[in-house]
Amino acid sequence: MNSDKHQDASEILSAFGKHLASVRKSHGWSQEKLALESGIARSYLSGVERGQRNIALVNICRLATTLEISTDELMKF
Amino acid sequence: MNSDKHQDASEILSAFGKHLASVRKSHGWSQEKLALESGIARSYLSGVERGQRNIALVNICRLATTLEISTDELMKF
Repeated sequence: MNSDKHQDASEILSAFGKHLASVRKSHGWSQEKLALESGIARSYLSGVERGQRNIALVNICRLATTLEISTDELMKF
Repeated sequence: MNSDKHQDASEILSAFGKHLASVRKSHGWSQEKLALESGIARSYLSGVERGQRNIALVNICRLATTLEISTDELMKF
């Protein structure tokens, strides 16, 4: 394993969470609205935005679809 | 929840798995090499490529870093 080149997990989660919150706010959406529309629990979504949850692929895609952006756009963080 | 517009989870996982395998092969890498370099178990990686594992954000980023592509490039599937 070549671990030197890998970003720290908490940095990845924190960066994604901030980006997601930024995209959500740019839509003028509350966490409640995004959670409801995407079928994800609000408490879980809150944890993702705070960088405390290692969100998996299917939910990343659900959030992107709900926010009407492509999955790769949501992954530019 | 607005489920109509959401892709089926198995379709998402299958599409990502095929894309990952394609990127890996374009590097001329075996599953063993990618697993070893990224610090992910080969059996897990095999499951991801077959669309049977809902891989999470940190491992997606690790695979992208190992394959020397951006995370959003790995998410264009």
